[in-house]
Amino acid sequence: MRHFIIDCDTAEDDILSLYLLLKNNIDVVGVTIVEGNIPFEQEVKNALWALEQINRDIPVYPGSKRPLIKNFMTVEKVHGKGGIGDILVEPKRFNAQGKHASLAIIDLAEKYKGELEFLAISPLTNLALAYLLDNSIVRKIKRVWIMGGSIFSIGNITPVAEFNIWVDPDAAKIVFDAGFNITLVPWDVIINYPVTDEEWNLIKNMRTKMSELYIMMYSHYRQYSSNIQKINGHPHPDAITTAIAIDERIATRKEKRFVAIDNTDGITRGMTLVDRFDADTRWSDKPNAEVVYEIDKKKFMEKIIDLLNWF
Amino acid sequence: MRHFIIDCDTAEDDILSLYLLLKNNIDVVGVTIVEGNIPFEQEVKNALWALEQINRDIPVYPGSKRPLIKNFMTVEKVHGKGGIGDILVEPKRFNAQGKHASLAIIDLAEKYKGELEFLAISPLTNLALAYLLDNSIVRKIKRVWIMGGSIFSIGNITPVAEFNIWVDPDAAKIVFDAGFNITLVPWDVIINYPVTDEEWNLIKNMRTKMSELYIMMYSHYRQYSSNIQKINGHPHPDAITTAIAIDERIATRKEKRFVAIDNTDGITRGMTLVDRFDADTRWSDKPNAEVVYEIDKKKFMEKIIDLLNWF
Amino acid sequence: MRHFIIDCDTAEDDILSLYLLLKNNIDVVGVTIVEGNIPFEQEVKNALWALEQINRDIPVYPGSKRPLIKNFMTVEKVHGKGGIGDILVEPKRFNAQGKHASLAIIDLAEKYKGELEFLAISPLTNLALAYLLDNSIVRKIKRVWIMGGSIFSIGNITPVAEFNIWVDPDAAKIVFDAGFNITLVPWDVIINYPVTDEEWNLIKNMRTKMSELYIMMYSHYRQYSSNIQKINGHPHPDAITTAIAIDERIATRKEKRFVAIDNTDGITRGMTLVDRFDADTRWSDKPNAEVVYEIDKKKFMEKIIDLLNWF
Amino acid sequence: MRHFIIDCDTAEDDILSLYLLLKNNIDVVGVTIVEGNIPFEQEVKNALWALEQINRDIPVYPGSKRPLIKNFMTVEKVHGKGGIGDILVEPKRFNAQGKHASLAIIDLAEKYKGELEFLAISPLTNLALAYLLDNSIVRKIKRVWIMGGSIFSIGNITPVAEFNIWVDPDAAKIVFDAGFNITLVPWDVIINYPVTDEEWNLIKNMRTKMSELYIMMYSHYRQYSSNIQKINGHPHPDAITTAIAIDERIATRKEKRFVAIDNTDGITRGMTLVDRFDADTRWSDKPNAEVVYEIDKKKFMEKIIDLLNWF
Repeated sequence: MRHFIIDCDTAEDDILSLYLLLKNNIDVVGVTIVEGNIPFEQEVKNALWALEQINRDIPVYPGSKRPLIKNFMTVEKVHGKGGIGDILVEPKRFNAQGKHASLAIIDLAEKYKGELEFLAISPLTNLALAYLLDNSIVRKIKRVWIMGGSIFSIGNITPVAEFNIWVDPDAAKIVFDAGFNITLVPWDVIINYPVTDEEWNLIKNMRTKMSELYIMMYSHYRQYSSNIQKINGHPHPDAITTAIAIDERIATRKEKRFVAIDNTDGITRGMTLVDRFDADTRWSDKPNAEVVYEIDKKKFMEKIIDLLNWF
Repeated sequence: MRHFIIDCDTAEDDILSLYLLLKNNIDVVGVTIVEGNIPFEQEVKNALWALEQINRDIPVYPGSKRPLIKNFMTVEKVHGKGGIGDILVEPKRFNAQGKHASLAIIDLAEKYKGELEFLAISPLTNLALAYLLDNSIVRKIKRVWIMGGSIFSIGNITPVAEFNIWVDPDAAKIVFDAGFNITLVPWDVIINYPVTDEEWNLIKNMRTKMSELYIMMYSHYRQYSSNIQKINGHPHPDAITTAIAIDERIATRKEKRFVAIDNTDGITRGMTLVDRFDADTRWSDKPNAEVVYEIDKKKFMEKIIDLLNWF
Repeated sequence: MRHFIIDCDTAEDDILSLYLLLKNNIDVVGVTIVEGNIPFEQEVKNALWALEQINRDIPVYPGSKRPLIKNFMTVEKVHGKGGIGDILVEPKRFNAQGKHASLAIIDLAEKYKGELEFLAISPLTNLALAYLLDNSIVRKIKRVWIMGGSIFSIGNITPVAEFNIWVDPDAAKIVFDAGFNITLVPWDVIINYPVTDEEWNLIKNMRTKMSELYIMMYSHYRQYSSNIQKINGHPHPDAITTAIAIDERIATRKEKRFVAIDNTDGITRGMTLVDRFDADTRWSDKPNAEVVYEIDKKKFMEKIIDLLNWF
Repeated sequence: MRHFIIDCDTAEDDILSLYLLLKNNIDVVGVTIVEGNIPFEQEVKNALWALEQINRDIPVYPGSKRPLIKNFMTVEKVHGKGGIGDILVEPKRFNAQGKHASLAIIDLAEKYKGELEFLAISPLTNLALAYLLDNSIVRKIKRVWIMGGSIFSIGNITPVAEFNIWVDPDAAKIVFDAGFNITLVPWDVIINYPVTDEEWNLIKNMRTKMSELYIMMYSHYRQYSSNIQKINGHPHPDAITTAIAIDERIATRKEKRFVAIDNTDGITRGMTLVDRFDADTRWSDKPNAEVVYEIDKKKFMEKIIDLLNWF
């Protein structure tokens, strides 16, 4: 059995990722919450509410409410005021833990030493803070799966930077420099595999409880993605990353690369700069991440449909 | 008749570009020399020597020997000690002008007001200096054709920066901000159209004076491109840009974009950052360049073969 | 009774500061250790050894071994390999705590809510990390006394930056932005009050146990200060700050200022930039620190002599 | 006879500096104009008008209207809309030259090779451009006198940067790196020697044509300096620098230093960072400027009074 922490700035795709893990029998030992998509308190509520929907009282650990050093902004325009559209859900039964997410990461890394996997579909502040407090987690955490950045400088929060890395590039730099066993799923790979109109309609017609939740949660994001971001449908950045973490074969092309993080305050803030050629202009001989270049869309969608048939 | 200044850091592809212009009946009113590929004095000699080969005494104006502000390095490893391989040619009959290239640009822009075109296949220091001395050249120069930068952060001097822009990003920033009518041909487009082994052998078998000169001049660069840069053959950054300047139809896809230049001293130095989406994360509503995305390789190679049959 | 945490990168002046607190009946509730002057493990040993000398088993909490983001270097050239000269002391009876310094700060801030004072004579990593984990410490910690930076850009690790701030400017930025009640004692004020030859000889002739310890611990630093740094004697950066914390009247001129921290990677790294004039070029209307400009050297030396007469 | 170019962003103190040179029998071979205090065209007019007042038709060369790379702002709030208060003067008889200031500098450096002195009481764009076009001026220009920067990070356009260097730090970096024989008179030295109320009243009572002009030109600046900048009177940055250029003994303490220029875009833009200690934290062993630390106020004021008695 695999043991995961899922680190969320809880919007619709974080929730789907959590569900994907559980549907696929992953042991989710903690849900950690970090600053990102929407106001922090609502992110915590969303995680608790999502667990209530499936009646699974997994510990939710609120963590960092801000990037290490820099300012950031939330993106309700993308995900709606509540992160799953404009609705602001309230958990009724479950409560968040008192322990800080970063301390929970340290404790769980010790408890599941050598087996714990960390799924970061969010800014990397919690993991960076945990590492700063206890660098032994590098040895204890088996894999770190990261949704973030881009290979070819295609951004979503600036023209050239992806949101998760942009929010806290200092945390990202710490994490990429630390020596973790990282798999990176970049934004400009993700957007090649949006949910098409046909797929969207197919899901609409499933009429399961999960499919209805899906349609409810993604309607705002789908509007934004197609109308404002001009993506042909809506992408699944977090869910694709999660699906790859569940089944690596969904990533059909991966390359080991050295990825530098731009943590300046200028126009390049939050860029992931990929050391690309095997030529004489390289920054480093040591890759620090496995970068995903292509995925198997069919296999991924099967995982989604499987989930939506859960109940 | 079209009037051109060609701005060179004279290596093999600069010389071929000059020949392409002349073979296609462009009136080359000046060859300006700028810091770049190899030591400055040899760049000047190469230009004079190249003109001697075809017996055309066009004025050669030595210009800036250094970037405006930053340090740089020459790349003899790429082009050979002499820029056309390791041979150091010496002009025998022609001499360089005493007038600084930037002053020549100002004077020629006035002389050919509204008609002059500027072909920059090199760092942009000369043009930037001319603009700083006399900003009226923006109105007088009809087109500026630039080989430089990249769309997707694929570099050749650092993992993410192309040489021409990297050498003098401050000059590039001045030029891109000035309001010129710019067409940009990026490195990561260029490398999709290398001269294949088949084409190289075809040229080898032409046995004209020009084809022999071509083989002589490009052998070093071809070695470097295929062995070290892992390009499948050798690319023609300057010659493709020149061919597009001669016949715009060679660029089969172009888009008007805002291109920001990174002129910091950090790892992003010299990046061209392209404002890409028509979304809500744009830097600017005003494109400052027409960016070439695709070219007609067949038409381009016809231009090359036509040139190599000159004599 | 006043309750203090003293945060040390334990060299000679940190030890003297600790002794000053205790001699003046301050309740030292914890000694926290942070990266800085010498290798981290020796800093911890020095603190334990210093406590053994006076037989006071106060909890020593090892904290951050590195700056948040940047690289740094230790300065054995200044303080000797062991921080109190080249001798490497080993504690014999006391042991360090297992709890991380930053977590100890959080707990002690809660325990001594509204009364705790934090004396930072070292880089600010531990305090910044504590704040990132629990920003309520801003309200709970009554005062933060900082030795660091400079008013007039006089540095000791670069020509313009002081060591404590330079080591972790990101941490310093976090701390100065957080809203703590800060008193800053800058390096370029400190160096106006070195221990003169006359004073040094007077101490030499005291022949108490403490005066002998003083001479032993400061001999290396005095050499460096006078021979290499060309200060007329050796200064007491930490001890002066501590003396001011004990008795504010030792600071004879203080001004409330806004202090910006340069946390770039360039030549200005670690500068403290003081918003100085009450003019129209200010950065901020809100001071974030009380800056000490002048001290009463006589009162300070009395405190030192009093300490050296302890036993 | 000494030959000077005076480079002006012509406000009141530039005009007084010009007059000081002429009154002291300096051969002013050109007045060059650069962006700075007020709109460029008015700066040119002011220079011509100032020469008309004393009936000396010295060539005025308009130069750069903008910094090399960065944006800047003019400071009419300091000097009034017209630079000598709010009055906008118009020259009636004299006209500006057509030659660009930087080209004039190159030509005059050749003409007065080894003898020419350059007095820069303004941003350094014109001199930097001249150097970029022809670096032989470093050998031909005997001395460069610069009003600019500060030793102790006391600014007037930001809390830590002086206006002349802030406006074009890139030009300043070029000039300080070029190898000129520089004497620097910093802002934070200048402000120690303001014209007191007593001196101001004394000048008011002189009732010469020049003293009346002085009172007229400086009234706005004096208001600003004393009321807004909280200087005790008004300082003479340009005129003190000019006086030192005329008679070096007015600078009573000078030190050879390496001065680094911050040409980033951040909060440290335009700082002059002085390599200060003869210690082991130096940036360079080679001074690039002679920095003035103290002046003889009495001698300086004698020069002023002598000038105001001219007619």
